[in-house]
Amino acid sequence: MVQVNENYLKLKAGYLFPEISKRVRLHSQKSNSSSLIKLGIGDVTEPLPQACIKAMNSALTEMGTIEGFKGYGPEQGYEWLREKISKNDYLNRGCQISPEEIFVSDGSKCDSSNILDILGNENSIAVTDPVYPVYVDSNVMSGRTGHPISDGGYEGLTYIAINEENNFKPQIPSKKVDIIYLCFPNNPTGATISSSELKEWVNFANNNNSLIFFDAAYEAFIQDNSLPRSIYEIDGAKNCAIEFRSFSKNAGFTGVRCAYTVIPKSLKGVSLDNQQVDLWSLWNRRQSTKFNGVNYVVQRGAEAVYSEEGRAQVKNLIDFYMHNAGIMRSELQNLGFKVFGGINAPYVWIKVPDKMSSWDFFDYLLEKANVVGTPGSGFGKAGEGYFRLSAFNSLTNVKNAMNRISNI
Amino acid sequence: MVQVNENYLKLKAGYLFPEISKRVRLHSQKSNSSSLIKLGIGDVTEPLPQACIKAMNSALTEMGTIEGFKGYGPEQGYEWLREKISKNDYLNRGCQISPEEIFVSDGSKCDSSNILDILGNENSIAVTDPVYPVYVDSNVMSGRTGHPISDGGYEGLTYIAINEENNFKPQIPSKKVDIIYLCFPNNPTGATISSSELKEWVNFANNNNSLIFFDAAYEAFIQDNSLPRSIYEIDGAKNCAIEFRSFSKNAGFTGVRCAYTVIPKSLKGVSLDNQQVDLWSLWNRRQSTKFNGVNYVVQRGAEAVYSEEGRAQVKNLIDFYMHNAGIMRSELQNLGFKVFGGINAPYVWIKVPDKMSSWDFFDYLLEKANVVGTPGSGFGKAGEGYFRLSAFNSLTNVKNAMNRISNI
Repeated sequence: MVQVNENYLKLKAGYLFPEISKRVRLHSQKSNSSSLIKLGIGDVTEPLPQACIKAMNSALTEMGTIEGFKGYGPEQGYEWLREKISKNDYLNRGCQISPEEIFVSDGSKCDSSNILDILGNENSIAVTDPVYPVYVDSNVMSGRTGHPISDGGYEGLTYIAINEENNFKPQIPSKKVDIIYLCFPNNPTGATISSSELKEWVNFANNNNSLIFFDAAYEAFIQDNSLPRSIYEIDGAKNCAIEFRSFSKNAGFTGVRCAYTVIPKSLKGVSLDNQQVDLWSLWNRRQSTKFNGVNYVVQRGAEAVYSEEGRAQVKNLIDFYMHNAGIMRSELQNLGFKVFGGINAPYVWIKVPDKMSSWDFFDYLLEKANVVGTPGSGFGKAGEGYFRLSAFNSLTNVKNAMNRISNI
Repeated sequence: MVQVNENYLKLKAGYLFPEISKRVRLHSQKSNSSSLIKLGIGDVTEPLPQACIKAMNSALTEMGTIEGFKGYGPEQGYEWLREKISKNDYLNRGCQISPEEIFVSDGSKCDSSNILDILGNENSIAVTDPVYPVYVDSNVMSGRTGHPISDGGYEGLTYIAINEENNFKPQIPSKKVDIIYLCFPNNPTGATISSSELKEWVNFANNNNSLIFFDAAYEAFIQDNSLPRSIYEIDGAKNCAIEFRSFSKNAGFTGVRCAYTVIPKSLKGVSLDNQQVDLWSLWNRRQSTKFNGVNYVVQRGAEAVYSEEGRAQVKNLIDFYMHNAGIMRSELQNLGFKVFGGINAPYVWIKVPDKMSSWDFFDYLLEKANVVGTPGSGFGKAGEGYFRLSAFNSLTNVKNAMNRISNI
């Protein structure tokens, strides 16, 4: 019989979001679920920007004509989109990232897990704790970890705790690690990183020949202009970092699917016989072989994000969700909760009451307030004692959720 | 420095389509390239069916409203689409494939290469020769082969020749092999497989506990109703086969991106400690972790393929391309070429004149007729001496190309 990939069998059974769904389902069976307010999964709720709709409508019309029809596009994405990205997201902020260094894709979840394809299994890996589960699971599935550890996590991975004690700033490792995942503004904690803090990571990576995977999916939520939106704002990052960006959270493309990955041409890896190999070429080969590009219509929609109209509409979306986050922060603080995040990120990270676990608090909010959040422990052992609430919902739902929590 | 995936370095440099592009570019620099007719890459040229455009327009409008907006969809695809697929492509043809066994994706290229993720590296692999290059390259990249062999191919893979001598029917291997890739109607040769021939493969697989990857991307081009459109038309296939299907070639979705993979619930693999593991669960876990579903609008477009209007329009598209194929077949035969395929497939596979190699003939057609095709040797060593012409083009271009070839 065909052998399965043994590494999949190491994955812990109770994956976070299915477990949440199960508990919500059981709860709904015994009470009125119609009034359930979901602040759990980080999914946007507002309609797409009209600028994007307009651009996609017109692209769709083209696709129905013999002159305008587009078949296979370039696997790397259309050049007109990559030029807009390069100019608006990088050159305008002083980062020398060229269109050629940008790879358009159908999502950061795909990119941040597929990127492992081009790297050897020998590399040591560090993640923060708590962490976006995909980083860990994709390492487990590709055989880069050992078995699960009884108190959480997997053997072979280096976990860098981020919590109240260190002000949610990951500490630079004391010994060399080959690959480091960083996500700022952070999912799940909503924490940010300053330029000087990020500079320390870039220096560490360059001094140790490490590679940083920088996930900037939430950069659009940054309100404090002194904070870096891209790792390439830091000198030296083009020699040590790959960056992941997405249209999911700024333009609300979670159901549309468009993202991109930046691999600077200067970025190198090494082969077993000690030859330098550029990572751009490997990723280009990976994408050309295993991926067929993003829908033409979607790419026109993404391009519209950079139009004047699109930028204004995206700003409105961000303002809308950040207004929600502000309400959540102040209401929860008034109720006596210790609250983190929610200032430059759409996630509010709260410390759960003493003697309760994250899952206890999940059940408590579900039972007493009909509100769904995400237990911090679902993101890793160091997330225990915390709870994530997402600002992605209507103003009414956010206000109602806060009222209900205050009335418990 | 970070270690690269050493297997990528085994890949042969001169990948087929980039090499074609290079030669076409050089040719264009010295002659009038405006009249170049491309019958090389298998990309559709006709506009999308209006039924799909209509459905996608209406879905796009929904996405611009607060009530109709859709965020993350199910990673496996929306149930309404999977129900249509199950009913129309399977149940109506007597195949008991349920919606749950269908995984909607953004392309067969992704699926047929990503599927290796869930399987162990120990499995032995067989492919036909010639073959769709992605099957081979994805095995090389994931470390399932040795180095390239000097006369073509890679160490460690079993190659099953399909050529004139065996009437383009792959011979059942004499010894056990764990995984077998079959593609019918065949890309690149345009050959087909009968139910009784396919039955032999299913029996072989079940007798040897092998797994068949059945690529049916071109099933819509089948004109002979006695031929199987799905491997599940064969008894026993649900215990040994995964099927890949696509909307690229029937509804012209190459620039839209939608496909699906069928993994029957009954399909098993085995772990190192000899436990049976169902492949459906592994793929479900893979897709949930490393993929975020297909664009909602696109899925509504794919659904429209199954409407009465959609079916009629898809039939027109197929008839259009098959009419081209018929012209190509008869014109080339009149010119004295030995011609294969083009009857139940959009590819015409011709034997190149004696003493010419596939690449010689490529250069000859390019120089003398300004026509681009694909050298058979690019698909594998046994493709040497053959040449692929695609029927995906306008009637005018196809007629002009045939005229030019006849005037050489």
